[in-house]
Amino acid sequence: MKLMNVTEPEAVFRLITDNFPALEKEEVGIEEAGGRYLAEDFFSGEDLPGFDRSTVDGYALKARDTFGSREGLPSIFDLKGEILMGEAAPKINAGQCCLIHTGGMLPAGADAVVMIEDTEATRDTIHVYRQVAPGENVIHRGEDLSRGDRALPAGSCLRSAEIGLLASMGAARVKVYRRPVMGLLSTGDELVPYTSQNLESGRIRDCNTPALTYLGRRSGAEVVSGGILPDIFDHFLEKSRNLLNRVDFLVLSGGSSVGARDFTARTLQELGKPGLLVEGISIKPGKPTLLANCNGKPVLGLPGHPISALNVFLIFGVAILNRLAGRRQKFYPAVNAVLTRNIASRSGQTDFVRVRIEEEAGRILAVPVFGRSGMLRTLADADGFIIIRPEIEGLEAGTEVQVFLWE
Amino acid sequence: MKLMNVTEPEAVFRLITDNFPALEKEEVGIEEAGGRYLAEDFFSGEDLPGFDRSTVDGYALKARDTFGSREGLPSIFDLKGEILMGEAAPKINAGQCCLIHTGGMLPAGADAVVMIEDTEATRDTIHVYRQVAPGENVIHRGEDLSRGDRALPAGSCLRSAEIGLLASMGAARVKVYRRPVMGLLSTGDELVPYTSQNLESGRIRDCNTPALTYLGRRSGAEVVSGGILPDIFDHFLEKSRNLLNRVDFLVLSGGSSVGARDFTARTLQELGKPGLLVEGISIKPGKPTLLANCNGKPVLGLPGHPISALNVFLIFGVAILNRLAGRRQKFYPAVNAVLTRNIASRSGQTDFVRVRIEEEAGRILAVPVFGRSGMLRTLADADGFIIIRPEIEGLEAGTEVQVFLWE
Repeated sequence: MKLMNVTEPEAVFRLITDNFPALEKEEVGIEEAGGRYLAEDFFSGEDLPGFDRSTVDGYALKARDTFGSREGLPSIFDLKGEILMGEAAPKINAGQCCLIHTGGMLPAGADAVVMIEDTEATRDTIHVYRQVAPGENVIHRGEDLSRGDRALPAGSCLRSAEIGLLASMGAARVKVYRRPVMGLLSTGDELVPYTSQNLESGRIRDCNTPALTYLGRRSGAEVVSGGILPDIFDHFLEKSRNLLNRVDFLVLSGGSSVGARDFTARTLQELGKPGLLVEGISIKPGKPTLLANCNGKPVLGLPGHPISALNVFLIFGVAILNRLAGRRQKFYPAVNAVLTRNIASRSGQTDFVRVRIEEEAGRILAVPVFGRSGMLRTLADADGFIIIRPEIEGLEAGTEVQVFLWE
Repeated sequence: MKLMNVTEPEAVFRLITDNFPALEKEEVGIEEAGGRYLAEDFFSGEDLPGFDRSTVDGYALKARDTFGSREGLPSIFDLKGEILMGEAAPKINAGQCCLIHTGGMLPAGADAVVMIEDTEATRDTIHVYRQVAPGENVIHRGEDLSRGDRALPAGSCLRSAEIGLLASMGAARVKVYRRPVMGLLSTGDELVPYTSQNLESGRIRDCNTPALTYLGRRSGAEVVSGGILPDIFDHFLEKSRNLLNRVDFLVLSGGSSVGARDFTARTLQELGKPGLLVEGISIKPGKPTLLANCNGKPVLGLPGHPISALNVFLIFGVAILNRLAGRRQKFYPAVNAVLTRNIASRSGQTDFVRVRIEEEAGRILAVPVFGRSGMLRTLADADGFIIIRPEIEGLEAGTEVQVFLWE
């Protein structure tokens, strides 16, 4: 029997980075750009803010007119009026002030704003009980961004802050990387569509197609399903080739028996050059995973067990989609928790252990969920997983662990 | 001047939970159900798996025929054939075995599978070098779920595992809570649509609408924008009432000046009973936040500064959407990092401090990003925020902190 040639997870991530660049650029409206990645540096076309603005509710005035003011010795100003939001402000002279609201435009002649709490209004005059420095409570024109500044670097994820920033500069459209199109093909003579009722003996429903479709869409991909194919090599190769031509990333999900793996491996080898990159990954669950570069496009062969298939897709499939979408590797958030029981782990492989998160007496606990690979019920019971690195032989109850949440 | 009556964040979450139940139920196909929340317990309509299956590649046989087998003393079996995937298996008798693949159907008469590694094939006979126990390497019919078992409890988030589980049971449609529809209205005489070019003096673009639209959609809501309204009370109240009638949750985003807050507070008070629940929250940024229950619908009045508005929406707006969508409060993942400098914090309020995440010599660092409230540029520089609880007066450089990522 042929031994499986396994690759370390870190090496798989490097192969993904080295083989598959981001897709081409396209221009989209910023209301469709959320969650996508900027393909070019974005430079500001104007000053932001576009005029000197107050950061508080108060009175705009000349700072030097307040010098020396204090609780018992106010300076006294003529109130010239109120600055209405959205309107250009009048000019003020020495000894004058204008009522101004947060975000209001500073009048010509003024260089500071005194907060309303530090003043007292009497008919047409304002008593100011505190001195302010020039520039105090003012954001100057261009202070956030000057015209020509790089507002956002290429590769930025367009989150709410970036979208707001682009909108405040009047950038209605931006260049982002194209969204990946992911193709899905299931194979296995025992598989029937998940909508089938009254199964014949020995048949099982294809549960990977809807689950992987969800994960693909969640990572921003458009998903095209090619359905279920029988285990006939020439037919499978032709259908795979047709689907690969229409997508940016092909995922084959099938049996995990040695025969099924060989079948998928042959397909990946014949779909394009250079062919197979990975023949197995040193992780559990998910070892019998195949990855190929077929004429520049990634093709992932998932193990047959649903839990293994979802685990591999969540780790490596999502990494491939992120790469195609132009996302840079970032940090992964996790929930800190205390492990409730000992876990054994074989050294030399990375273990993904499913856990449920519970709260008890203010402590957050990670409770391992055991079950045989392939049983989706145990996966539905789990909130996430902890990662046990290959050099570690096990974890003891009471250890602080990081729980990465399932999606 | 009226002092702001502030509410603690935890009390705001409780008010959200107590005032706003999940929306009504609806039935959807499982391909549209991803990320939504189950509105009813889901019971299995059949056994899962539907037949006894092998978990390995090997030979199906009667376990007792292997008893006593070991390396030097194999037991010998007649090979009756191969069990093809998806086909009903033949019956075997004592001393017989069938080649079986992972997931294959156990033949009648067999009660265990011996792994292929523990055997040797010679022409028509199989030598077995290890004894197996009854049930070894077999998943029994109904072992994952028996017909009538509760497969998923109401409130479950339909992640990939749940969708896969539902698909494997042939459940093409499920009952979930309806997706919330969120309405957005901006107010402020200074605001112009974000697509405007060549602004008049004193005008600024409405950057909150596209940013909040993105955050609302990300939380699963449909978003309806009512545009920008001038600060005319009767007009604003009428438009707000019309939009509130069409949505499940109304968000008002406007000026943060004292005048603008009073304007929004009056609107919230008049839109429906019981009216205002929260007149301010003891957080920074985001203190001047309003929340009302208007005839059973939540209405959120955001502070005017974009950073404050986004911060409040991310914490409380998303909590409201989650509540309407039927999500139970869960655990929030974060990145563990080491703070690079001291941060002062006023006790008595919860501070949200923006940080950038950096990696240096294998350590993950949280670098505070300073900037005046209202400047979106600093928000775009930040990867996330750390939370400083009100009883803490500051954090020292070197402290281990949790960074919650921005969206």
